[in-house]
Amino acid sequence: MKLFDEQAFIHQLSIDCVIFGYKDLELKVLASQINMSRSFWTLPGGFIKHEEGIDGAAKRILEERTGLKDIYLEQYRVFGEPDRVNREVFEELAEVRDEWVAKGILDDANIGWLGKRFVSIGYYALVDINKVSPQKTELDDSVDWYNVKELPTLIMDHNEMVGYALEALRQNLDQKLIGFNLLPETFTMREVQELYEAVYDRPFARNNFQKKILDLNVLERLEKKFTGAQNKAPYLYRFRRE
Amino acid sequence: MKLFDEQAFIHQLSIDCVIFGYKDLELKVLASQINMSRSFWTLPGGFIKHEEGIDGAAKRILEERTGLKDIYLEQYRVFGEPDRVNREVFEELAEVRDEWVAKGILDDANIGWLGKRFVSIGYYALVDINKVSPQKTELDDSVDWYNVKELPTLIMDHNEMVGYALEALRQNLDQKLIGFNLLPETFTMREVQELYEAVYDRPFARNNFQKKILDLNVLERLEKKFTGAQNKAPYLYRFRRE
Repeated sequence: MKLFDEQAFIHQLSIDCVIFGYKDLELKVLASQINMSRSFWTLPGGFIKHEEGIDGAAKRILEERTGLKDIYLEQYRVFGEPDRVNREVFEELAEVRDEWVAKGILDDANIGWLGKRFVSIGYYALVDINKVSPQKTELDDSVDWYNVKELPTLIMDHNEMVGYALEALRQNLDQKLIGFNLLPETFTMREVQELYEAVYDRPFARNNFQKKILDLNVLERLEKKFTGAQNKAPYLYRFRRE
Repeated sequence: MKLFDEQAFIHQLSIDCVIFGYKDLELKVLASQINMSRSFWTLPGGFIKHEEGIDGAAKRILEERTGLKDIYLEQYRVFGEPDRVNREVFEELAEVRDEWVAKGILDDANIGWLGKRFVSIGYYALVDINKVSPQKTELDDSVDWYNVKELPTLIMDHNEMVGYALEALRQNLDQKLIGFNLLPETFTMREVQELYEAVYDRPFARNNFQKKILDLNVLERLEKKFTGAQNKAPYLYRFRRE
């Protein structure tokens, strides 16, 4: 099936995914680069098949475009201003039409429906960045992680989408305990704190932070992490899943 | 313009509104009753015009169907399972087609697009129930407030929509201070507590509750409310808007 098959999908409705990962003390977002006559960066996104639920569509899109399965995924906002579609992108698209038809991405008829207004459902996802290797589609020239604070300029309102996703992530970090999806299997308290500091982009006081996290009562304490300096070895923790 | 004008709206995408009001110690939701060969209850809803943003569409729909303007409105979830549309309703619709064409609600051509799958964007709204008088459209036989705990069976997934809206309201009550939209201009602390108890459907301890609310630092204390028993007169408060 072509990526932009006019018959396969609900028209004027799309899904875009803000995929958060965490590495080297930085909160990162996955973006793909598409080369037309200019380069564009976009969030991984796609459309909803006629017989498919929207959550199912988001999972499929994530898997197709990044190789990720079974990850934490949440709807967070719908983007539906009438002027959110950047006409410039579609002018570029018209220019590369022949090339994309040759690649099997497009057939001639398709630009029509792609050029219409789209309302987009925003999902965000949290992944353990060490476990994933993003996959390119025939559309992408690269798929890479970018520091959320140093994102390139994305097409349309995709930068705004990231901003709202980050806001939703901050609101839900404690409440839904979703932050632990960003960490490896075991971690130190300091690593949890560093994650929070990256997400909220501000420091936390160590003692208060540790108490707050332990009071959530969701961590299981394991053995100490041996670092050489025995008496300063920190405990390892694991997220206790019910 | 006809309510169901095929040309005017984006297809397969709708908006449904859960409108919360508070009265007589009960959290209430607005629902309309539509008589076809059977009676159906539905949430106020509608479609998005081609040149209209989704938030703007939600505001317009609310105003058209309830007479309410400038009220607190928030997207809270998209409902997009492929089987969410209840076929039974559309069979009924086919039966009353002639009557509705006579009323100007439908023209013949329209049942086609209405019978397709719809993804619906859920909004919830909070209103001061004393200030509003719900308005019927030509579609509705009645528009009434129902206790959220005693809602009639609504069409399609509308009961589920109310459930998710209530969950979103609970999550946001403190954080976004939206609860005060449900109260009249001035109120006693006891009235705030009663509102919280209705929303969360559980009792709160009076002293803790008062401290928690005052700590939010958003209320302005006014004169005492004279009730006859001078020394027990409670203070009146007003929400301090920046």
